[in-house]
Amino acid sequence: MAANPIAEGSAAALQDELDAINAKITKQGSLVRELKKASANADDIASAVEALRVLKIDAESLRKKKEELDPTAQFNRRSFDELILRKMFIVPSFEIHGGVKGLFDLGPPACALKAAMVDVWRKHFILAESMLEMECTCLTPEVVLKTSGHVDRFTDLMVKDPVSGECFRADKLLEDAIDELIEANPNMPTSEREGHLRIQIQADAFSPSELDEQLVKYGCKAPSGEAYGPSFPFNLMFKTSIGPEGTAVGYLRPETAQGLFVNFRRLLDANAQKMPFAAAQIGLGFRNEIAPRSGLLRVREFCMGEIEHFVNPADKSHPNFSSVASKELVLFGRDDQLGSGKTKLITVGEAVASGLVNNETLAYFMARTQLFMERIGMDPARLRFRQHLTTEMAHYACDCWDLEIQSSYGWVECVGHADRACYDLDVHSKATKTPMVATLKLDEPKEIEIAKLKLDRKSLGKTFKTDQRVVASALEALAENWADFEPIATALETEGKAIVDGFEVTNEMVTWTKAMKSVHEIKFTPSVIEPSFGMGRILYSLLEHCFYQRNADEQRCVMKFKPAVAPQKCAVLPISSGEEVNAVVDEIAAELMESDLATRVDKSTASLGRRYARSDEVGVPFAVTVDFDTLTDGTVTLRERDSTVQIRLPKSDVTRVVFDFVHGRFSWEEATAKYPVVQVKEED
Amino acid sequence: MAANPIAEGSAAALQDELDAINAKITKQGSLVRELKKASANADDIASAVEALRVLKIDAESLRKKKEELDPTAQFNRRSFDELILRKMFIVPSFEIHGGVKGLFDLGPPACALKAAMVDVWRKHFILAESMLEMECTCLTPEVVLKTSGHVDRFTDLMVKDPVSGECFRADKLLEDAIDELIEANPNMPTSEREGHLRIQIQADAFSPSELDEQLVKYGCKAPSGEAYGPSFPFNLMFKTSIGPEGTAVGYLRPETAQGLFVNFRRLLDANAQKMPFAAAQIGLGFRNEIAPRSGLLRVREFCMGEIEHFVNPADKSHPNFSSVASKELVLFGRDDQLGSGKTKLITVGEAVASGLVNNETLAYFMARTQLFMERIGMDPARLRFRQHLTTEMAHYACDCWDLEIQSSYGWVECVGHADRACYDLDVHSKATKTPMVATLKLDEPKEIEIAKLKLDRKSLGKTFKTDQRVVASALEALAENWADFEPIATALETEGKAIVDGFEVTNEMVTWTKAMKSVHEIKFTPSVIEPSFGMGRILYSLLEHCFYQRNADEQRCVMKFKPAVAPQKCAVLPISSGEEVNAVVDEIAAELMESDLATRVDKSTASLGRRYARSDEVGVPFAVTVDFDTLTDGTVTLRERDSTVQIRLPKSDVTRVVFDFVHGRFSWEEATAKYPVVQVKEED
Repeated sequence: MAANPIAEGSAAALQDELDAINAKITKQGSLVRELKKASANADDIASAVEALRVLKIDAESLRKKKEELDPTAQFNRRSFDELILRKMFIVPSFEIHGGVKGLFDLGPPACALKAAMVDVWRKHFILAESMLEMECTCLTPEVVLKTSGHVDRFTDLMVKDPVSGECFRADKLLEDAIDELIEANPNMPTSEREGHLRIQIQADAFSPSELDEQLVKYGCKAPSGEAYGPSFPFNLMFKTSIGPEGTAVGYLRPETAQGLFVNFRRLLDANAQKMPFAAAQIGLGFRNEIAPRSGLLRVREFCMGEIEHFVNPADKSHPNFSSVASKELVLFGRDDQLGSGKTKLITVGEAVASGLVNNETLAYFMARTQLFMERIGMDPARLRFRQHLTTEMAHYACDCWDLEIQSSYGWVECVGHADRACYDLDVHSKATKTPMVATLKLDEPKEIEIAKLKLDRKSLGKTFKTDQRVVASALEALAENWADFEPIATALETEGKAIVDGFEVTNEMVTWTKAMKSVHEIKFTPSVIEPSFGMGRILYSLLEHCFYQRNADEQRCVMKFKPAVAPQKCAVLPISSGEEVNAVVDEIAAELMESDLATRVDKSTASLGRRYARSDEVGVPFAVTVDFDTLTDGTVTLRERDSTVQIRLPKSDVTRVVFDFVHGRFSWEEATAKYPVVQVKEED
Repeated sequence: MAANPIAEGSAAALQDELDAINAKITKQGSLVRELKKASANADDIASAVEALRVLKIDAESLRKKKEELDPTAQFNRRSFDELILRKMFIVPSFEIHGGVKGLFDLGPPACALKAAMVDVWRKHFILAESMLEMECTCLTPEVVLKTSGHVDRFTDLMVKDPVSGECFRADKLLEDAIDELIEANPNMPTSEREGHLRIQIQADAFSPSELDEQLVKYGCKAPSGEAYGPSFPFNLMFKTSIGPEGTAVGYLRPETAQGLFVNFRRLLDANAQKMPFAAAQIGLGFRNEIAPRSGLLRVREFCMGEIEHFVNPADKSHPNFSSVASKELVLFGRDDQLGSGKTKLITVGEAVASGLVNNETLAYFMARTQLFMERIGMDPARLRFRQHLTTEMAHYACDCWDLEIQSSYGWVECVGHADRACYDLDVHSKATKTPMVATLKLDEPKEIEIAKLKLDRKSLGKTFKTDQRVVASALEALAENWADFEPIATALETEGKAIVDGFEVTNEMVTWTKAMKSVHEIKFTPSVIEPSFGMGRILYSLLEHCFYQRNADEQRCVMKFKPAVAPQKCAVLPISSGEEVNAVVDEIAAELMESDLATRVDKSTASLGRRYARSDEVGVPFAVTVDFDTLTDGTVTLRERDSTVQIRLPKSDVTRVVFDFVHGRFSWEEATAKYPVVQVKEED
């Protein structure tokens, strides 16, 4: 796709305008969130929202203008969707039985693409850094997800149509009702209109009973015509019960990470207690989305790849950081989102040195993710790292950067990179009373302040009975560091009692003195830095990035998969249906297959051009054609998919050449230098 | 493990006795099943069961005798289990939260082993035969599993303890109660005893109310001391609901096959309508086992690999059959199970020619399965194919052979090979009114008898209204072949009406004449031949087959994984902690990793022997040691795990040599011929 310099010039100017306006939108959006969070004056909120609305309309009209200037930027969805379905990349699950929203099957080409992508992922991350890979179960008992916070927090408010039982998100209904009301009354007085908008803004903050009241007030009726039932919280996890009793509640995991956290102690042992180290998992996650949409981008069952890198919170350097320090990334920092609206191209080293990215380990993984994306053939021009605004992050998180991939659905988060501090290990440790700590051996002993305890075992025993040991060891653990024990000491001194791990300890039970101790090691709860890959989203984005139409011809769709991940590596085609020619085709195909190169044989009677086009559609990077010359001189032609250039080479070279292309040991440029290029007119 | 010829001689004689008795057991078991099925006289059943009991006791005592003769046959479970857990091959899921029965996580070495195993599977089956791989969802709507029969048939009768809610299999409780009663009363009169046994035999055939009665009669009490609640059927599938309404019942698939069946039409299209072809899937299955046990052999969430080979029922030959015809398999046919009790070593070609295996395609896959098992390193002496007895098979199945793998749990079914006829496509086709047929193009047109219909559209329209088209096309489909239409014709002639697809058609609506038609193609519903792999069971069996203790020393466990599947391919060890030596270690390790060879670096201060032993425990096939000579002459030693033989070679050869070992291009024998063997005493 050759660039048009004139259109590009204008497009660049428009892009500048668009970037500026997008920055304003982000800033304004953040302001709205803050106002709502602070329960600010409703009028202030309403006018902030109105300003946001206007900005969005401006941005949309700019976007349209820009699209008109650059026709190649217009993604042909109809043609893409048709290809995806016809070639069975992705099909709706259980289609003949009516299908299920949000469930899709991967057909043969997508399945092979995914297997290759996962294989690269495993080599690029797990193998290259000796990560500890695990495969934990999808079925998860309630206690684990209660501990992680998913049972309580993974909810939305819902209402039901009392007749059909159909469910809806209550806040969205209210928002839509207000939109409709305003649209239907263009001459509504401003003050009245603003009153409605004030209500709308608070839709997602109302309590269930408040929401119910508003739905009644705005006359929201269910599709059946009846009023909605009362709103109730709906958890997005799929619930089931494990075992025959029906009492052991279980969920399908909404992420794979928890399996790694609960195995932390064994993993640390498996790593001979050495820190830092990473564990990784590739597997399924499940979310009962209320309104699944956007193809593979929001589905109910999806493949994830998650890495949990455990690190000393006091030292988040990464041993291999220097290997990526000069790698340039497109970063869209918090300040730029709120300010210039422009991304920055900056080396990883600078990003950490300037404090833009919180620490080396987080930045290291961002660079590795970028390299992975390039390795599988994602378009680097459509990748960026967006930092979470402070209003977006969980309270415990230090810093978060999403790798966003641009597709026809806009910029979509495909890989999260989060520094989750020690939140995860802490909650599981507390819930199970299992220490989840690592040890740092000190080169030289260090003097630290501790509390020297004297416990009154009798008094402890009398009060806590069988729990006395638990209380005693909790106190002793705190006493190891004066800083930890100080709040307990203060409470005991001022109030005569203190709460330790949920137990009320009184000052009869314990006395203490402050002391110094020489320690040779320090125990700490590791921080977790988590790159989390949505494999399905990446797969879908890759399909879009690889799709193009040759010469803008709708009938000539091409998938430009890189040889390393292409579902099939080589097509083998006979020029005619003669027996001798076919025998050579079979011979070449068998040899390719023996080297584990997935091969496509097309002996159909369609024209050669038509058969090339068919193999282009599933992204086969190379095609070997056996013709009558082959029978006399043993040579064949080898066609490269994107250039459609062909070379002539001995048939005995084919397997080695294709193998080396696939394994990145030989390039097409080298091949055209080594073998004669033949002129072939490619017509349908 | 050197064989003891004397013990072996006696063992062989004992084995003959054991085989004979096992055959009797199989025959007697089959007789009992048939008697029960035929609701035979209860006395006959009871005495048949008693005979079975005596046979089993005899077999057990023979087995014990044989074990005493051959100590190496005694598997050291304690030592094996300890290793599996300590090295984190397999760990209980959610252990720190108390765990869940029947759920296990794969730790790093098992995860890598499984990934390698799946990779070999994909190459050996999918790639080598251009199978169409799919990845369908685990979440499955009820209608699909209702159609397949799982909703109705996947059940056991259960009772509850009314106090604790704990559940039990009702038939097992009754059986146990009768056993206890008889044991507690050794002097019980024979007639009374036989009466109880008659009840016991029927335990699994009682209706819920009959079972409840018997439980009361035998005084079965729940652990709480109360009587059990009424028995009820329990389905082994995990149930959930899909979507926010809570009304769309879904299950976690109990097998992966259904996803392929419902996609049959698209798959046939993707294969350009060519038959035969195979689809395949690797993915999770879920079964809510009532009493999970036997480690990885009976779990609630498991990985399966399933192949559905679609074939013309009139021609079950396989195009590649000749490639496996001379392969020898250990077959345990139906007749031998009931007769000699001996397996047969027989070529695949003979097995089909003699009719022992029903058809070429089924036999072809059995041979391919055997080759796969050998490729991943399973012990061929502990593999056999056991044919299902006619009493074991589903009514629609033509023939079934299980690949059984012998482990410490006995012979366990790990791969099923079933000719399922056209059952699966038929039920989905009927339930969805979707034709699921393939077309065979005939070389020469063929004359067939058809029915020429004359439909009275008016009459059809009056009776069936909007359904009239459905009825008309159902009639027309049947009319394409006289054999299909004949029963309808007969019914219309004799009774004036007939049922077509659930609609009552009368003889006013249709008249017909018999006619001949020349056809150029024949439509048929394909038969399905299904090899179904339990990947978890295969993984577990492989761990047992690869486990041994060097010189019978409990402290020196070895996992003899083949290089191709070993979790780590090479260890690199420095002889001392010197900086120069360590630099070479890092250099070699980095080079190995760059060639995607998982490498284990052990710089710990333990003795070299101890470090070799550690890498043996996780089955690392090769270990490179860097010593002081390396610094002067650039050579290192390379140790082979099982022989502990070491060779000396230039460090620059290491990566290529190990790569070639792993990819099967170079053998250890060749290496010892090429490089000097060094004598090293290996002590701890």
